[in-house]
Amino acid sequence: MPRQVRVIGIGTGSPAHVTGQAIAALRECDVFLVADKGEVKDELVAVRRSICEEFLDEGAYRIVPVTDPERGPDADRDRTAYRSGVDAWHAARAARYADIIANLPEGETVGFLVWGDPAIYDSTIRIVDAVAESMPLEVQVVAGLSAIQVLAAEHGIVLNGIGQPVHITTGRRLLDEWSADLGTVVVMLDGSLKCRELVGSAPDLVIHWGAYLGLPQQVLRSGRLADVIDDLVSLRADLREEHGWVMDTYALTVPSAPLLA
Amino acid sequence: MPRQVRVIGIGTGSPAHVTGQAIAALRECDVFLVADKGEVKDELVAVRRSICEEFLDEGAYRIVPVTDPERGPDADRDRTAYRSGVDAWHAARAARYADIIANLPEGETVGFLVWGDPAIYDSTIRIVDAVAESMPLEVQVVAGLSAIQVLAAEHGIVLNGIGQPVHITTGRRLLDEWSADLGTVVVMLDGSLKCRELVGSAPDLVIHWGAYLGLPQQVLRSGRLADVIDDLVSLRADLREEHGWVMDTYALTVPSAPLLA
Repeated sequence: MPRQVRVIGIGTGSPAHVTGQAIAALRECDVFLVADKGEVKDELVAVRRSICEEFLDEGAYRIVPVTDPERGPDADRDRTAYRSGVDAWHAARAARYADIIANLPEGETVGFLVWGDPAIYDSTIRIVDAVAESMPLEVQVVAGLSAIQVLAAEHGIVLNGIGQPVHITTGRRLLDEWSADLGTVVVMLDGSLKCRELVGSAPDLVIHWGAYLGLPQQVLRSGRLADVIDDLVSLRADLREEHGWVMDTYALTVPSAPLLA
Repeated sequence: MPRQVRVIGIGTGSPAHVTGQAIAALRECDVFLVADKGEVKDELVAVRRSICEEFLDEGAYRIVPVTDPERGPDADRDRTAYRSGVDAWHAARAARYADIIANLPEGETVGFLVWGDPAIYDSTIRIVDAVAESMPLEVQVVAGLSAIQVLAAEHGIVLNGIGQPVHITTGRRLLDEWSADLGTVVVMLDGSLKCRELVGSAPDLVIHWGAYLGLPQQVLRSGRLADVIDDLVSLRADLREEHGWVMDTYALTVPSAPLLA
């Protein structure tokens, strides 16, 4: 019998983001494996716990923290090294999860609570796929609201221009990739608001930015990138100082983007 | 007092996709304005009705169908004409909605039920913004699962390659835009599986395709684009024939995409 696994997108922290399908999947789980990324992200673990407490009966489930393997600093690596570093790190994580899952009581269903959507910049599915190489798993994935969507909803914006594309990328890639042809560019995993360097070199961009989306401390800002970026950089630093961590995302648009020829 | 408006993403048709926040917003509404796009899309209106019936008490709300203005054929237009055609059509729609909203009893909250996510290839927010130019509105937008996310979850895939971008575009733009540098390319609003023309001219792509995502008649297919596209084209035609309409989306990936230099 394959081990039952549920990879459950829980949205960005608000219990109100959780879908009925996710609640049903949560209830099927006996044990949740939660990555423990060290004290900085304690609050993210706490949010996962509170989601369980919100929707599940006490004593009906266990939460097992899984310590993340050490991960070297990425910032100065070139892309090939970055990719192979990520691959090695995923392999080490997968081995830990495989070991834990192999030692669970037979018949228990394993849940993974994924911040946002498992399909967007999240490694859980890759880890589960790697675990599945060493033991039979039957996996169900449940989509959850991503930070991108909460960003758009809270600002009340449509991501795409009419008939135009949307490009989702990382802070690491933004400066190499940015082009008006990409349409609205949504940036994830940007530790230092790389968009600052687009001021002057790109058309007059508009930014819609949000931090802690869906959480009580949510902060939103928007405006002409050139006008607001300096305030955003210092706000982001202040928030990081105040809360001990910050997670943010933003969308860059060219107002009334010219049509491509 | 501004009129209260809720723009509510309901996911792609399954009541299980609806979030707690969306249910709460549904319950705040007295009247739902639902675009009536003619008999072909009757089923989409029916799904909206069934979402209301699932979560709301009978008699607690009204559904008002709003007939869409006529929209000329788009297929042969160039992009500028397409854009101005869409603009004119949105203006005509907005005028109809403004007229209906202006005549509702004072104090009633107006809801719009949006298929998928209001932020992604949906015109409701633009219509509401246009209506807000003629009367005071207080608008809350609630994100919903998009077809893109349900596609990924049902296939159990991550959309982005590790550290790579995701590009969301339309069938209309696909052939001009496609490039391996875009990362995974998700195609919406493609009435004729334009990706067929990428076979041979692009690297050996993999397609993950889904139709009626989240509905009981959901159909999934995946494989090497070159291997499956002919079957997909005929399957899509058969489904359209069988159900009277088809809505589908797909993701194109380059397997183990080479890193950009």
